[in-house]
Amino acid sequence: MKPTVNAKDVAKLAGVSQSSVSRVFFDGAKVTEKTRQKVLAAAQELGYRPNEYARSLITNSTRIIGLVMKGIHNPFYPQVLKQFTTSFKKYGYSILFVHTNNDEIQNEDIETLLNYNVAGVIITDATMSMNVAEAFKANHIPLVFFNRKLTTSDFYSVCCNNLNASRKIAEFLTARGEGPMVYISGNEDTSTSREREQGFAEVLEQRGIPYQKYTSDFTYDGGYETARRMLSEGDAPAAVFAANDIMALGVIDALRKSGVKIPEQVKVVGFDNIDMASWPAYQLTTWEQPIDEMVDETVNYLLSEIDEYTGQAQAVEVEGSFVERSTT
Amino acid sequence: MKPTVNAKDVAKLAGVSQSSVSRVFFDGAKVTEKTRQKVLAAAQELGYRPNEYARSLITNSTRIIGLVMKGIHNPFYPQVLKQFTTSFKKYGYSILFVHTNNDEIQNEDIETLLNYNVAGVIITDATMSMNVAEAFKANHIPLVFFNRKLTTSDFYSVCCNNLNASRKIAEFLTARGEGPMVYISGNEDTSTSREREQGFAEVLEQRGIPYQKYTSDFTYDGGYETARRMLSEGDAPAAVFAANDIMALGVIDALRKSGVKIPEQVKVVGFDNIDMASWPAYQLTTWEQPIDEMVDETVNYLLSEIDEYTGQAQAVEVEGSFVERSTT
Repeated sequence: MKPTVNAKDVAKLAGVSQSSVSRVFFDGAKVTEKTRQKVLAAAQELGYRPNEYARSLITNSTRIIGLVMKGIHNPFYPQVLKQFTTSFKKYGYSILFVHTNNDEIQNEDIETLLNYNVAGVIITDATMSMNVAEAFKANHIPLVFFNRKLTTSDFYSVCCNNLNASRKIAEFLTARGEGPMVYISGNEDTSTSREREQGFAEVLEQRGIPYQKYTSDFTYDGGYETARRMLSEGDAPAAVFAANDIMALGVIDALRKSGVKIPEQVKVVGFDNIDMASWPAYQLTTWEQPIDEMVDETVNYLLSEIDEYTGQAQAVEVEGSFVERSTT
Repeated sequence: MKPTVNAKDVAKLAGVSQSSVSRVFFDGAKVTEKTRQKVLAAAQELGYRPNEYARSLITNSTRIIGLVMKGIHNPFYPQVLKQFTTSFKKYGYSILFVHTNNDEIQNEDIETLLNYNVAGVIITDATMSMNVAEAFKANHIPLVFFNRKLTTSDFYSVCCNNLNASRKIAEFLTARGEGPMVYISGNEDTSTSREREQGFAEVLEQRGIPYQKYTSDFTYDGGYETARRMLSEGDAPAAVFAANDIMALGVIDALRKSGVKIPEQVKVVGFDNIDMASWPAYQLTTWEQPIDEMVDETVNYLLSEIDEYTGQAQAVEVEGSFVERSTT
């Protein structure tokens, strides 16, 4: 147990009430200058440090944002974590990091977020059942689904305009008169994977170009194994569109290992524009997700809801941009 | 502001004192069964959820571990973050994630950790001045420097035995009768970079093999640029030992871009064994840092110090193992 000094000790030494001590440190409520000076002198003498817990109980608010993340091996997400931490720090908020191994966020993690009475929650690549999300709503804790688009209109979500982006990728690939193509999905219960397929499929259908779909899981190993499966099944597509960059890198490595020339024999396109996409070993053509803009939208919404809770919901989509490199 | 129910409301409805409510939820202290039932019934009726803040103020302890990290772009660290989060969750502890852009952890971050009265602190790749570290000691907050070895014996640190590891790397490279070599350092104020050079240099000197040192920064771009500088200065070493894997990948890409054959003309060795080291595009020979063991040492120490603070310090070193792949 740590040696400690609390507001009671300060009040006793200063000869004032405990609520006067609270008012000096937290409230902004009126307190006479004389009382203030007595309290500050006593606090200094005792080394009193009013902490977040006392502040939280008195103001009934916290400065913790819960951030839930699963796919730490996809460099997109550590980058997202960094940018949220940096951005919230400017406003005095800290990040409680919740990692989940499951697709769906677990009960113990929900308990943690509620126990800490977090000011807001960001769900990145995990899923959350709607009745759990309702528990946050009941507690007036604002929630953002990040890099996800919801089918319900009950919660705020921020993601890239995946439909538009994948349409443009398909237009780029078909403009050169290519043959049959392959789409490699991520986890199929994600809006990102579904919408990237949908936009891609729409354009290909319009132009009468067939495509084959392979189901994968948004990981490097998943992309690698899927490309090997594709080759072993005799599929020789003109182009492969992988639902994220890290899978696309696995696809490139698997194709090269089998002696397939990129882009001469097969073109490869990813999605995200992670740092590695620009490495000389890959030079991957991809779609850049505008992380800055996505983070700003999320932070602004959460701060506004923390300031005055409305529970308003919206599906925000930002555009991003096509990045052409050497794999196409 | 959130609608809220506090212990006072529960006490009022139950017709008991506030401290009875506290005892029911937190203390383990004695309370009559009759009182307990009254409190639980009132709590249920009001939907009272005793949160971490109330618990913290009453027990004077928290279940938050502050984790300070800088280099989120090096995949080694997201992996470390994931393993700490998973490991601490088993014991009911959560991770407050503190990201710093500076080498030295900033005052505002120290304030955050102290304000949250964290149960323990882990400093990964950031540095902390000793007088700041003393502030944690004064508050009986245990501190671990992770992947760092301290020159003082005042604080606990956990890292790989970098001296032994780099000696073995040098022995492996010199056993094949190679010519002059290159060491690419990370940030030079880190024990990891210094000790990896020291062990490497010792063995090379014993065997009369010269080496050239280039200073870099533990990043992919740093490795890439350093290799280009090396080539432009006419250095054609038999082998390059980069102080971490992500720099080694940059070295490989730069050498290949200039048409240098690996390992035929230049051998490359890294350090960490991140996932990417085993990717077919790289197949990097490296030293595996035993993250599991390093995390266990850290978690066990912190839990023991949280249970009963001793302030004991030790520099723990774990061994790890050499991983031979295709770049040597």
